[in-house]
Amino acid sequence: MPVVSIDQVASHVGKEITLRGWLYNLRESGKLIFPQFRDGTGVIQGVVSRTENPDAFQALSGLPQESSLEVTGLVRADARAPGGYEMQVTAVTIIQKITEPYPIQLKEHGVDFLLENRHLWIRTPRQAAILRIRDEAIFAAREYMHKQGYVLTDSPIFTPSSCEGTTNLFEVDYMDDRKAYLTQSGQLYVEATAAALGKVYCFGPAFRAERSKTRRHLTEFWMLEPEAAFARMDDMMALAEGLITHIIQSAVEHCPKELDTLKRDVKLLETVRPPFPRISYDEAIEILHKHGNPTPWGEDFGGDEETILSSEHGRPVIVHHFPSAIKAFYMQPDPQRPELALGFDILAPEGYGEIVGGGERISSYELLMERLRQNDLPEEPFRWYLDLRRFGSVPHSGFGLGLERTVAWITGAEHIREVIPFPRTIYRIYP
Amino acid sequence: MPVVSIDQVASHVGKEITLRGWLYNLRESGKLIFPQFRDGTGVIQGVVSRTENPDAFQALSGLPQESSLEVTGLVRADARAPGGYEMQVTAVTIIQKITEPYPIQLKEHGVDFLLENRHLWIRTPRQAAILRIRDEAIFAAREYMHKQGYVLTDSPIFTPSSCEGTTNLFEVDYMDDRKAYLTQSGQLYVEATAAALGKVYCFGPAFRAERSKTRRHLTEFWMLEPEAAFARMDDMMALAEGLITHIIQSAVEHCPKELDTLKRDVKLLETVRPPFPRISYDEAIEILHKHGNPTPWGEDFGGDEETILSSEHGRPVIVHHFPSAIKAFYMQPDPQRPELALGFDILAPEGYGEIVGGGERISSYELLMERLRQNDLPEEPFRWYLDLRRFGSVPHSGFGLGLERTVAWITGAEHIREVIPFPRTIYRIYP
Repeated sequence: MPVVSIDQVASHVGKEITLRGWLYNLRESGKLIFPQFRDGTGVIQGVVSRTENPDAFQALSGLPQESSLEVTGLVRADARAPGGYEMQVTAVTIIQKITEPYPIQLKEHGVDFLLENRHLWIRTPRQAAILRIRDEAIFAAREYMHKQGYVLTDSPIFTPSSCEGTTNLFEVDYMDDRKAYLTQSGQLYVEATAAALGKVYCFGPAFRAERSKTRRHLTEFWMLEPEAAFARMDDMMALAEGLITHIIQSAVEHCPKELDTLKRDVKLLETVRPPFPRISYDEAIEILHKHGNPTPWGEDFGGDEETILSSEHGRPVIVHHFPSAIKAFYMQPDPQRPELALGFDILAPEGYGEIVGGGERISSYELLMERLRQNDLPEEPFRWYLDLRRFGSVPHSGFGLGLERTVAWITGAEHIREVIPFPRTIYRIYP
Repeated sequence: MPVVSIDQVASHVGKEITLRGWLYNLRESGKLIFPQFRDGTGVIQGVVSRTENPDAFQALSGLPQESSLEVTGLVRADARAPGGYEMQVTAVTIIQKITEPYPIQLKEHGVDFLLENRHLWIRTPRQAAILRIRDEAIFAAREYMHKQGYVLTDSPIFTPSSCEGTTNLFEVDYMDDRKAYLTQSGQLYVEATAAALGKVYCFGPAFRAERSKTRRHLTEFWMLEPEAAFARMDDMMALAEGLITHIIQSAVEHCPKELDTLKRDVKLLETVRPPFPRISYDEAIEILHKHGNPTPWGEDFGGDEETILSSEHGRPVIVHHFPSAIKAFYMQPDPQRPELALGFDILAPEGYGEIVGGGERISSYELLMERLRQNDLPEEPFRWYLDLRRFGSVPHSGFGLGLERTVAWITGAEHIREVIPFPRTIYRIYP
């Protein structure tokens, strides 16, 4: 009997096949039972008659959820069945019958309990759908960068210094009593590889020891960070627009089943096409004031402000030309208005907040030295970074895209801890 | 004037274009100078005549290597020029003229010096070629896994425990005086996601605080780790064969210029096709003894043994059925000979050593508990891992592929520190 995965049953209608997986749910109705099987690729309903198939009936009757098994049966198209197909079970082999109560029942559980049992929680259709969409988002992102001629150059995780100041750093006992710090961003390193390879990006985990408990923060998260020699802020806005659009439309195209499982309103994603609305920081402050938000000029935006700014549009919004004082030390100032940085953020709609931050980097050695001093940053760990300005410095720009916030937006997840397989937060590094 | 990258000049022969990049080298010959420009995508030679173009001649004459510039000129096909094309320079704009001696001259430097200047070393054609091949290897690997239906599920970096014992772990100060450990392998976590999604893999950095100073060791390296529910050791051998073949042949197909820069003998790569030779551990011991290597049955192989075993074949060699005692605690024993594990290694040719290790995992709760005890491993951090055997346990298998060793083999690099943008070793976390 051919072993077939559930996502392939459509091409086996009228044939007998074997599935390997787990019992997801069981409904008994007199002489019939309706087991639901899952195998990681989907869920299919079976039907077993006590009179026609007493052995299979007995094997499945009362079998606890998540027991593992191998099932053989006839595939039928049935519009009433969830998913459109049903399996008339002819034989069942139990691999493991669970003897203890399965922790995650088909009911509501508290978040702490679910996080403590994340290794089992991911088996539920909603969590599995989110993880599949995350995979699609990552694949689409790499595909897009590859087609644009960007070379992946992984930035190191162990760093001797930090990208944006020394607070919120995780310290590691390195060899021989030395200390290392976990990277907060791979950007400084892709600035170096951009000078070697032209157009580059890194895509790996980053770490922030922030005490933020919001639904947008994790201590461990993934970022995609492109950097290009000779690129300006506008080039990076266009690249980010294209990248975000490709990620979203790939998910819409390749994950309809998963988005349906999540009951996601796909119309809200289909409208995401370039160009995205662009507003300056000055204009953003005006919009906030019009909405009764009193943020004064010069202050950074928090979640509330981001939600106001992005709520008017069905697409992501680009905010540019922030005050230099609230942006990272390496941001190139606007030659027309030096108090502003040539930096931009992209805010996702529906309140998902900042998903991209980027801009042009300072290419002058003297100005960068001045900014290090102004920010009380030590010169020694940045020695190599300063070298990039001493030896063939060129204008260059880049950005960072937060993977989890992007996937949270696509999936409509309430909290970004749902969109990473094993979330790490202030309080949790288990399982 | 259109700005063109050097890898695109072939389609602009007979036309005037503008290049942006760096001066890589300069040869002066009387009234002519021959500058070599690089822009990250390649190197092209220019020619400037003092009489025909005095301004450009003066701008370039004596210009230090790695100064940044914009050059306009006519593209000509010229078989004598390196790369087959030459640029007849008409105008030069210097972006930054270097005023200090560039640290990396076009001569041999010591390895320590090069590593200290890794941020500049990567600009040399050899290092740039290696990094482009690394990118291609990663892209090909993801493409292959995607086509095989594997879902990328990133394993966490912060872990409460270790995969293969508690030695060689990097300890991190987590929040509130708690400790976390940097992952040595994402395997345990993909075992959990395989039970949720069927076929999965992770691909991220891993960390080992090993004191090994061999050319095959880094403290930070990248691993691709597939895991599949219901898969057996043979399935994983076949998957690894297919994956390695696709990576190698993609590099051969898409990176001929880079392999040429590295003077790599491509014939040694073209022959890499499945099936790979398979030998049991028992047979491997016999082969070693025949070659005068005295390794007794029961001992693990080191670099010397791996080189002997792989040297007879032009392809990678699979060694299987190792003694359980020298393999990880979670390895499924062979039912016929319980002293052997259903595990395998793949050894790369040309002495590049083990690039894959994998096999079937223990699916029995009782046996896994017994192995934890035998290995003096604490039960508490493995509680969730044991859950996978309590709730719907199924046979499952996987492997880990070391990215850097694979890329070292493809590129013919002497030491794996050359195949990662910023290598981390016992002594080095800078730059």
